[in-house]
Amino acid sequence: MSAPNTKQIKLDEAEMQKAFEVIGDVQNEIDRLNEQASEEILQVEQKYNKLRQPNYKKRSDLISKIPSFWISVFLNHPQLSGHLDQNDENILQYLKRVDVEEHDDIKSGYRIKFTFDTNQYFENDVIVKEISVSESSETTCKSTPIRWKNESKNGQSASNSGKKSDGETRKRAHEAENNNDHGAFMAWFTDTSNEGNNEEFGEIIKDDIFVNPLQYYLAATTNDGDDESGGENDEDDDLEEKDDDQE
Amino acid sequence: MSAPNTKQIKLDEAEMQKAFEVIGDVQNEIDRLNEQASEEILQVEQKYNKLRQPNYKKRSDLISKIPSFWISVFLNHPQLSGHLDQNDENILQYLKRVDVEEHDDIKSGYRIKFTFDTNQYFENDVIVKEISVSESSETTCKSTPIRWKNESKNGQSASNSGKKSDGETRKRAHEAENNNDHGAFMAWFTDTSNEGNNEEFGEIIKDDIFVNPLQYYLAATTNDGDDESGGENDEDDDLEEKDDDQE
Repeated sequence: MSAPNTKQIKLDEAEMQKAFEVIGDVQNEIDRLNEQASEEILQVEQKYNKLRQPNYKKRSDLISKIPSFWISVFLNHPQLSGHLDQNDENILQYLKRVDVEEHDDIKSGYRIKFTFDTNQYFENDVIVKEISVSESSETTCKSTPIRWKNESKNGQSASNSGKKSDGETRKRAHEAENNNDHGAFMAWFTDTSNEGNNEEFGEIIKDDIFVNPLQYYLAATTNDGDDESGGENDEDDDLEEKDDDQE
Repeated sequence: MSAPNTKQIKLDEAEMQKAFEVIGDVQNEIDRLNEQASEEILQVEQKYNKLRQPNYKKRSDLISKIPSFWISVFLNHPQLSGHLDQNDENILQYLKRVDVEEHDDIKSGYRIKFTFDTNQYFENDVIVKEISVSESSETTCKSTPIRWKNESKNGQSASNSGKKSDGETRKRAHEAENNNDHGAFMAWFTDTSNEGNNEEFGEIIKDDIFVNPLQYYLAATTNDGDDESGGENDEDDDLEEKDDDQE
């Protein structure tokens, strides 16, 4: 049998052995530099996360005062809007804050904190979805358990956090009664599998929406004709009327 | 019509206007911090690229003296080996250096420089595959045109770079004659579309193989039983005999 590589043999056994040793040493040095680079990049990211924090806080405080801000953003997001059904829309009208907190070691995951106004659907005022990534790149999700009000058949009373409990809350309660399907987006909160939309929703919110939510909100209010950025949602101007359509 | 959000209106028109202005200002500050962070991360990456360079050079020099190093690495790579056909293997026996050079602005692309020993297949001693990414994230590829020897029907003579031109070269030349199919991997060099394996091969080489090629080479030589890292290739020990199977 003819070995086609014999011509390439430029080193004897001992020299080969030595060459592999030196390649190994050089590789160790490259690995060390890679680790050092990752460490420095992580430090830069952590530094800027801290610097962004007060701005995020200020932005979130201001946004919480704009009626229907987050539901408008979600309905105007090209990838997200298609996943929202009427049940999601009803509930997300009460969403007033969305806060993303990266883990200290950024690569290990993040938390998205959803803060709701008092509503007839559940008792929680804060629902947290947390995505964790292990060192072996496995992703796990956990969510705050949602304490649905209609499951206890207590309507909208129960242990409200008491911020608001007025006629409006009662008015909308009848829509939720006999309604155990809480919509695709809300299902995401209770889905702790690692399949389908579980990571996708989180990444869209963290890497796209949260970077600049205002642009998606404005896409709604300026969507009076030729601007198609609102995606499937042709009823941006009628956002507040959607609940009535269902009745 | 009942607007479900009226209860959320906490600001009058003028206050709303002011709130949006301040949100815009805060967003500008966040954008500025994001750009600054990207710039600093780029600087860290560039600094370490420079520091790694002499090590890459030293590693590449040493590797070029190990017979069949790169073909062994490719055949032992779980994702790459399946794409290599006999024609690729014949040619890649002559591959002696693989050098990856990131563009100065790393996100804008990279070049992979393949250096070959004199061979009967083509006249080039260096083939460069360059992947460029535009600011709008569009990817374009270009490659050094390959000057195939069998297309000119001149066998293995022509304008050899003259490093080696011995009996071995002539011996294998007959395998390439009447053979205009140069294999899936070699086809990659001439493929400038943005589909299929075009980016994939490049990224595997840049982000996986080049990070630590020795591990894949060693997977071949230590693959005497229970180590499955060689993937689909069950004939690691018989690497040098493969050409004979074809004759």
